[in-house]
Amino acid sequence: MPKNPEAVYYSDYLKLDQLLDAQEPHSKRYGAEAHDEMLFIIVHQVYELWFKQVLHELRAIHQDFSKPLLDDKALYLVAHRLRRVLTIQDLMNDQVAVIETMTPQEFLEFRDYLVPASGFQSIQFKELEIRLGLTRHTRIAFDQQSFYNRLNDADRSYLENLEEQPTLFDRVDAWLARMPFLEFEDFKFWDMYQRAVNAALDHDEAIIRANAADDQQLQTELEGIQANRDNFSALFDQQRYQQLQEKGVVRLSQRAMLSALFITQYREEPAFHLAWQVITSLAEVDEKLTIWRYKHAMMVQRMLGTKIGTGGSSGHDYLRRTTEQNRVFKDFFAMSTYLLPKSALPELPGRVRKALGFSLEIGKSTG
Amino acid sequence: MPKNPEAVYYSDYLKLDQLLDAQEPHSKRYGAEAHDEMLFIIVHQVYELWFKQVLHELRAIHQDFSKPLLDDKALYLVAHRLRRVLTIQDLMNDQVAVIETMTPQEFLEFRDYLVPASGFQSIQFKELEIRLGLTRHTRIAFDQQSFYNRLNDADRSYLENLEEQPTLFDRVDAWLARMPFLEFEDFKFWDMYQRAVNAALDHDEAIIRANAADDQQLQTELEGIQANRDNFSALFDQQRYQQLQEKGVVRLSQRAMLSALFITQYREEPAFHLAWQVITSLAEVDEKLTIWRYKHAMMVQRMLGTKIGTGGSSGHDYLRRTTEQNRVFKDFFAMSTYLLPKSALPELPGRVRKALGFSLEIGKSTG
Amino acid sequence: MPKNPEAVYYSDYLKLDQLLDAQEPHSKRYGAEAHDEMLFIIVHQVYELWFKQVLHELRAIHQDFSKPLLDDKALYLVAHRLRRVLTIQDLMNDQVAVIETMTPQEFLEFRDYLVPASGFQSIQFKELEIRLGLTRHTRIAFDQQSFYNRLNDADRSYLENLEEQPTLFDRVDAWLARMPFLEFEDFKFWDMYQRAVNAALDHDEAIIRANAADDQQLQTELEGIQANRDNFSALFDQQRYQQLQEKGVVRLSQRAMLSALFITQYREEPAFHLAWQVITSLAEVDEKLTIWRYKHAMMVQRMLGTKIGTGGSSGHDYLRRTTEQNRVFKDFFAMSTYLLPKSALPELPGRVRKALGFSLEIGKSTG
Amino acid sequence: MPKNPEAVYYSDYLKLDQLLDAQEPHSKRYGAEAHDEMLFIIVHQVYELWFKQVLHELRAIHQDFSKPLLDDKALYLVAHRLRRVLTIQDLMNDQVAVIETMTPQEFLEFRDYLVPASGFQSIQFKELEIRLGLTRHTRIAFDQQSFYNRLNDADRSYLENLEEQPTLFDRVDAWLARMPFLEFEDFKFWDMYQRAVNAALDHDEAIIRANAADDQQLQTELEGIQANRDNFSALFDQQRYQQLQEKGVVRLSQRAMLSALFITQYREEPAFHLAWQVITSLAEVDEKLTIWRYKHAMMVQRMLGTKIGTGGSSGHDYLRRTTEQNRVFKDFFAMSTYLLPKSALPELPGRVRKALGFSLEIGKSTG
Repeated sequence: MPKNPEAVYYSDYLKLDQLLDAQEPHSKRYGAEAHDEMLFIIVHQVYELWFKQVLHELRAIHQDFSKPLLDDKALYLVAHRLRRVLTIQDLMNDQVAVIETMTPQEFLEFRDYLVPASGFQSIQFKELEIRLGLTRHTRIAFDQQSFYNRLNDADRSYLENLEEQPTLFDRVDAWLARMPFLEFEDFKFWDMYQRAVNAALDHDEAIIRANAADDQQLQTELEGIQANRDNFSALFDQQRYQQLQEKGVVRLSQRAMLSALFITQYREEPAFHLAWQVITSLAEVDEKLTIWRYKHAMMVQRMLGTKIGTGGSSGHDYLRRTTEQNRVFKDFFAMSTYLLPKSALPELPGRVRKALGFSLEIGKSTG
Repeated sequence: MPKNPEAVYYSDYLKLDQLLDAQEPHSKRYGAEAHDEMLFIIVHQVYELWFKQVLHELRAIHQDFSKPLLDDKALYLVAHRLRRVLTIQDLMNDQVAVIETMTPQEFLEFRDYLVPASGFQSIQFKELEIRLGLTRHTRIAFDQQSFYNRLNDADRSYLENLEEQPTLFDRVDAWLARMPFLEFEDFKFWDMYQRAVNAALDHDEAIIRANAADDQQLQTELEGIQANRDNFSALFDQQRYQQLQEKGVVRLSQRAMLSALFITQYREEPAFHLAWQVITSLAEVDEKLTIWRYKHAMMVQRMLGTKIGTGGSSGHDYLRRTTEQNRVFKDFFAMSTYLLPKSALPELPGRVRKALGFSLEIGKSTG
Repeated sequence: MPKNPEAVYYSDYLKLDQLLDAQEPHSKRYGAEAHDEMLFIIVHQVYELWFKQVLHELRAIHQDFSKPLLDDKALYLVAHRLRRVLTIQDLMNDQVAVIETMTPQEFLEFRDYLVPASGFQSIQFKELEIRLGLTRHTRIAFDQQSFYNRLNDADRSYLENLEEQPTLFDRVDAWLARMPFLEFEDFKFWDMYQRAVNAALDHDEAIIRANAADDQQLQTELEGIQANRDNFSALFDQQRYQQLQEKGVVRLSQRAMLSALFITQYREEPAFHLAWQVITSLAEVDEKLTIWRYKHAMMVQRMLGTKIGTGGSSGHDYLRRTTEQNRVFKDFFAMSTYLLPKSALPELPGRVRKALGFSLEIGKSTG
Repeated sequence: MPKNPEAVYYSDYLKLDQLLDAQEPHSKRYGAEAHDEMLFIIVHQVYELWFKQVLHELRAIHQDFSKPLLDDKALYLVAHRLRRVLTIQDLMNDQVAVIETMTPQEFLEFRDYLVPASGFQSIQFKELEIRLGLTRHTRIAFDQQSFYNRLNDADRSYLENLEEQPTLFDRVDAWLARMPFLEFEDFKFWDMYQRAVNAALDHDEAIIRANAADDQQLQTELEGIQANRDNFSALFDQQRYQQLQEKGVVRLSQRAMLSALFITQYREEPAFHLAWQVITSLAEVDEKLTIWRYKHAMMVQRMLGTKIGTGGSSGHDYLRRTTEQNRVFKDFFAMSTYLLPKSALPELPGRVRKALGFSLEIGKSTG
């Protein structure tokens, strides 16, 4: 801490001269300023500031996940910062309501001046997606082509370079995969789990047969059960799991998937509290991003109809389709497919709990 | 006003004995009560109360739209009540976050007792959709069959009867279609508009040719322009409009569509303030309902994975698909396709404004 | 519209080089950067962007209210833009949750570097308050002294100059006061209203006497009624109204208050729809600003305890007190004191409605 | 799990016949039903359902805190359920916007029929406050008298009985007070902390002297510092602490306060994660309840002006005052008064950490 910190003036600290000088409505150049162009600019600038903040958090999180060992202190900060990202996302999603106070007619008053700029060209947003794990290998081709073509060289290189780096998804997968509790001496968690799973599916099938309202429904439900059996066997079998990966049904490595399942099922064990918190939050980041793309798509449709968007993309159908194919952590979302009710969940053997570092002392440490 | 209103006791007024006695977790019947079953019950009961309130508003709105003449006083109340519905919808959408505080494992603890009940079976929600305009003729067949089969006779008759009534969509279409300002003596709004439209599309095409980044994009954009020209010509031509209706591209009658467009374009005319307010709100009701179905679908996916939902429907894919096909007022949403910027919008002739009942006195009435 | 609009690049249009270069955490100068200082900076910069947007809207609204005649077209835009301000305020209020993801300990890591900067020094926020109507003559003195002392000369002059301009409150008061419908020939609205008011208060008193639970309550209630009678008589009597103004109980001029009441009571008259919308929105702007100050105060208390705030103000009590004394449009809030139920509200004579410019044609103009 | 669970019908499961039959607008008894009375009823019934849910969670939390030992598994559930309560509170706070869609005039149409019922008479809400820790000994007397007088015997006895039970505050205080880590052999945390505190206050004083803008400010700030020194010494000294309690400045027992401070300062220790989470959440419950009372007060003022509220309370001033005096966990809020920056915070000795049950194994248990 400094002996004599320089007296700080609010406007200087926040560089307001610079910040509040960055709004230049283009309609002014061609005649009278369209009143609503300021809103359009401010809304997008606010989004860009939030993107910067989210990237600030994601970079720190990514760094932590890149360490060979992620102890509880660091994991605590990761969980805390992910919560922050989620809070910001809630705000960004609600922010769509602000741009919706601009009617399509008001937008028409200046959108021609924006050709071909558009929200699709946000470098930071693209960086955010790439860093999470949405690289060109995992998104729709059309977007890539025309998006990258419209960038200047500096921006393009930056993103292309970023595409080649390990993403947060990669780091999280590696972190999950190296969890040391999957096998202990003669204990193999997955044998234990597989037995429990089979028992539970048999039970589900019995309920269906007893309660189906009609043959058509019975048929559909049984097909659902069979699909479940298939999914579970893929979970345990290396070759079949690889097939799921190739079909794009799952993305996590098999070991990572099994760890995630272990953590989720035993999340009440103190040693897993934070890990479960973290994977749940990552899935929520995905969810909220999806909501944002969906709301944004509806807003663009309302604003433009099927006219050409200012970014050169043809209308809104593109946006609508991408909300679905752009999940990064969808495997965490699908975790429920493999869950068992507590009554069917085996107790962890004492030695396993011990190896996890869970000790009775912890239970007694607070009141 | 009564001389001696009976003294009212809060708990009696709200019939709390009855209301707070309506929560019976079924897990209690089979052993220890699953703690989270209360949440599941309360959340759904709160939704049912909001559905009742929304239906209360929609019925009044429907009644107003069924009158032969809807004067400004009544239209004012309609706009006011639609705003109320939107406020409630915002709350219902945020309410999904409450059920998300229940983990899939906690849900597993009592979902087997719910077979086959599910959120899909809410009669009020179905009534809400039907009354808006989502009848069996305009939704996915599978939902109908098994949904209706699971109802008891009373509920089924009720809904089937409701399906045969004119919906709010029907009433709104009729109200728009009977707007008296489309033709005046020699004035035909649509001739005037059609000329303005053609000029604007020619202009758009010029911008595209000047700014396309590459041939692939140019090609796509020009196809978009051509599609626009087709849409516009369909708007004006009776036969082509009918084709759009048959293909399900539009739902409003042609006259209603033209009125809606007139109102939207000239919404700053005092005579149109409320009408524009109303059609915008109807489109927002649709939008928020869509967001609700989407959030609900994601929540169900997170809760159930691809397991069988408690309502017998196979998982979440069904829900995901229905978010798109269940728009009622999508035509208002697509209105922007036909808009013109103010600079291209013709002034209404004086006599037309006079016929609308707009008088200079109104302009002077307030300060 | 230009023949050849320059192709616009997103990052340039939003001046992102400038915008995203404006974040410099001071902790970096003295050692390792405190991770959360970025959040602190970004949150405040986002607020400053929203302040700029709100000021953009308020200036346009103020300009419209400064015109000698505010016709319905302009009033429509005023109502629309006030709605936009309210939407932004909702977002700003929710934004407090983002800064709350920073713990007091994390704030301690860099707050010493901020001395003496603070949120209290936001020039734009001060401008917002002044423009609404919160000048130094209507706020707590302490704030003025030390706040103005800490500004540099340019900022101080700017605000002091602004303090001398007519505020939005002034303009709204003038607009309300010049409403032409208070007297028509022999019709005096206030005579009519006063008679109706007396009848209603007599009725209220009867209900109280019949229903009071005990003497203490009866006493309190009757005092309330008497206070009401006093308020009402002050409303009608010029001298007594002046006393209320001097005591700071009311701020609007008497004519403006009477107009506001007229508009509120007869808001279902088409001629008053927008005017009522506008005064309700102004009261809501106040309400949401109050909620913001309250939430902000609680956040500061949580963050600082009773330690010295970074702006040199002693803690949070100051903030807590100011939430109450800094209402601008509180008279609209208190409007309900003077309302009458519809059953007690006299019908407007036909000639008055005619003078308002309300004609049957409007009623028939839409369906 | 049952062999043959009875098939469950949605409407029966949720007892919709009962639930949806509980809305009876009284205006119907006296003539035409006031359209908005349904909204008034539904909004209050929804609040009552949420109160029931919150009480369901609070009772479980209270039960857990009443156990002699609260291990990490139970603490985990407590933290989880408190988060749920907070989510519900956010929704309840946003719900005020729904009742605000009713104008004061619309309320006037039926409020006379409600005499003397009012929101003040919610038994569940009173129970919620009492259970948290707001008993008659800690709230404004006037409320008690007339509130209790208006209840029927059953309700009155119920609440009076509840007032005599240990509250959640009592249980939390006891839990904090019995934390075993305050003294270890020769280690006394508070000696260590006190030394660190004095050093930090000396530093603060130096900064103030160096940066005060004028004498008036300097004076005020130094008084603030002295008040801080006083607070701190009271924290460590038993007699002085008792004085603070008698003056109502603090409510927690001294041991509980010291534990809370220990937990807050060392919250990054894995053993304290949950405990810190819990006390932060309790403070937030308070905060959100305060926001609710504030919003509710403003809504009532807008609705009633200074007329008599339907519950017999004189207007809104009462509500405004109570928002401040009804904090239960305000000591957690004031925790920041006693915090030290990390640089000034002493490391815990190894043996202390060991006694907490924190072991290196935990750090290594996940990746």
